[in-house]
Amino acid sequence: AGAASAQPGPLSIAVIGGDGIGPEVTAEALKVLLAATEAAGDPEVTTTDFQLGADHWLQTRETLSEQTLEQLRGYDAILFGAVGAAPNDTRIPSGLIERELLLKLRFSLDHAANLRPAKLYPGVPSPLADPGEIDFVVVREGTEGPYVGNGGALRTGTPQEIATEVSVNTAHGVERVVRHAFERAQQRPRRHVTLVHKHNVLVHAGHLWRRTVEQVAAEFPEVTHDYLHVDAATIFMTTDPARFDVIVTDNLFGDILTDLAAAVTGGIGLAASGNLNISGTGPSMFEPVHGSAPDIAGQQKADPTAAILSGALLLEQAGRTEAARRIEEAVHADIAERSNGSSRSTGQIGDAIAASVTG
Amino acid sequence: AGAASAQPGPLSIAVIGGDGIGPEVTAEALKVLLAATEAAGDPEVTTTDFQLGADHWLQTRETLSEQTLEQLRGYDAILFGAVGAAPNDTRIPSGLIERELLLKLRFSLDHAANLRPAKLYPGVPSPLADPGEIDFVVVREGTEGPYVGNGGALRTGTPQEIATEVSVNTAHGVERVVRHAFERAQQRPRRHVTLVHKHNVLVHAGHLWRRTVEQVAAEFPEVTHDYLHVDAATIFMTTDPARFDVIVTDNLFGDILTDLAAAVTGGIGLAASGNLNISGTGPSMFEPVHGSAPDIAGQQKADPTAAILSGALLLEQAGRTEAARRIEEAVHADIAERSNGSSRSTGQIGDAIAASVTG
Ligand SMILES: CC(C)[C@H](C(=O)O)[C@@H](O)C(=O)O
Ligand SMILES: CC(C)[C@H](C(=O)O)[C@@H](O)C(=O)O
Repeated sequence: AGAASAQPGPLSIAVIGGDGIGPEVTAEALKVLLAATEAAGDPEVTTTDFQLGADHWLQTRETLSEQTLEQLRGYDAILFGAVGAAPNDTRIPSGLIERELLLKLRFSLDHAANLRPAKLYPGVPSPLADPGEIDFVVVREGTEGPYVGNGGALRTGTPQEIATEVSVNTAHGVERVVRHAFERAQQRPRRHVTLVHKHNVLVHAGHLWRRTVEQVAAEFPEVTHDYLHVDAATIFMTTDPARFDVIVTDNLFGDILTDLAAAVTGGIGLAASGNLNISGTGPSMFEPVHGSAPDIAGQQKADPTAAILSGALLLEQAGRTEAARRIEEAVHADIAERSNGSSRSTGQIGDAIAASVTG
Repeated sequence: AGAASAQPGPLSIAVIGGDGIGPEVTAEALKVLLAATEAAGDPEVTTTDFQLGADHWLQTRETLSEQTLEQLRGYDAILFGAVGAAPNDTRIPSGLIERELLLKLRFSLDHAANLRPAKLYPGVPSPLADPGEIDFVVVREGTEGPYVGNGGALRTGTPQEIATEVSVNTAHGVERVVRHAFERAQQRPRRHVTLVHKHNVLVHAGHLWRRTVEQVAAEFPEVTHDYLHVDAATIFMTTDPARFDVIVTDNLFGDILTDLAAAVTGGIGLAASGNLNISGTGPSMFEPVHGSAPDIAGQQKADPTAAILSGALLLEQAGRTEAARRIEEAVHADIAERSNGSSRSTGQIGDAIAASVTG
């Protein structure tokens, strides 16, 4: 709706396909993104491939060097596939790639807000008997909480072992993501923010989050807000997901809730995300919520829809709203036709959506 | 099935009705428990009421005194209703009663394993379109994790505020709850344990949990086990909950997963729990998973089923398996008849179940 924003300039994208099905789905996302850009008459998009992930680590022992990170900072945006080795691959320390590549990118590039829309498209089967109209976004904090890696262990392997994990929450980190959530809610028809936390147990972090929401809410008189404990939020997610508009929550609760949200909206194969640098100090990064699924890698079995929709989020964020809208509508139309159950390859789905973005 | 275990002795129960609907549902649980005890020909049950909770705090400023705690230690078991003031009651610091009464009981009485069965009874509507046969138990760690209250805040209320929450995990705490889960799995037809954690991010705690599961599993060759990240576990909970048999997990993940499990098995009105002292150093405590629901308190609108089933768990734990079985079967039968949608009062449901335990 409305005219596209003022002519944006050229757009440089760093592409990290990663492991497993990552490269396959990313290839389709790029195919569609370039087709949509051309159809919208937008200026050129340039893409640069970066080899990173478990395979790259096996060959080079690089997870993410400072040099690579510096290069990545020079791009307008990052399109990310998926990383992580097969769970039974004992050559790679478990979780290493996830932490030293994926989380390191989110933290180093200051991805304050991890945006995860949850929308039940018409025609998509939900595991819920009566899902209602699901259309909300989760704004997950992306740079702190229990994800900071501030844990440790003592007397490991003995009966006296003690292992700790520290959740770090700062006014800086919480305020900016809460503000982002309210700004986003302001643009949506229902204008509602739900804070999800567990303040009755996690008192100190909980008070910071609640106080911050109250303060920021005062600046947005048109936006209503409420609060749910994370346990109660999972109940509503299955009994009344249509109640949600914008959810703002911490890094770990956001991780949990967005997989659940993906499940009730038809599965992780459709769930897109954007790790947003909202201070303008580096590129944002767009990725499907799903993982690298090594068991089906290289077989053209993966659904590239989540990656394609992540490309739409990238274009949206880059101000290319017309091209983004084209992708969303093409995906929308493609999904509506899937119910016939014909199984297409990863490439066929990408081709079909790329063909229809010109429409 | 089989004969009741050797004649147990008399059973002393401390009863904490608490706030909101707590006293109402607890009264029905006791009514049914006493009827089942009599029907089974078991020795006497004595009950003692304890006034504790938000109302009691308003009158006396006691949350849980050392003296009351000492008295409680003298009972064989505790039957607990629900505590917590109305969210808009500004006279009571938020979360105070939950922490200083409920969590203090769990921690002080060393409730190592918080047992939460999730069973979809025939006739109960699930929000899932195709729930399958859901029958699993969550064994939630009850005395450590992020619930320990080891957090703090610096520069509160300033833009430099930092708030932390520390999750504490010990070999002692993890080993005993994992062992309890395997022992329980060993008694169940499917003999399977699923560890739920987030070891790719919470590295130190995650390694302790995984290593412990591997070690304990070696002692239970007949029990199989697998692992799920907590985010993935929420997906399976909605797409294939029948896959679960025994879930073992930490205090916070267990809190989240058991509300979700209650939701998919027909709601929090049916979810029972037992906070088990498994070292024999104090009484276990049985409580419905739901809260005090101040909005419907005193109106005989609450469903007492979760409290009644918690009473069955109490009897089971006390070795009174015949009386426990009677309650479960009576609840089972009662639930199967509910589909006609007639709405009964809290007391009417309790009366009906109490009448049928004699059958
Ligand atoms: C792979 C893992 C570290 C990651 C996370 O926990 O954030 C993933 O689950 C996600 O949600 O993007
Ligand atoms: C009331 C609250 C402290 C409690 C918890 O978080 O354990 C409740 O949610 C539960 O699950 O019993």
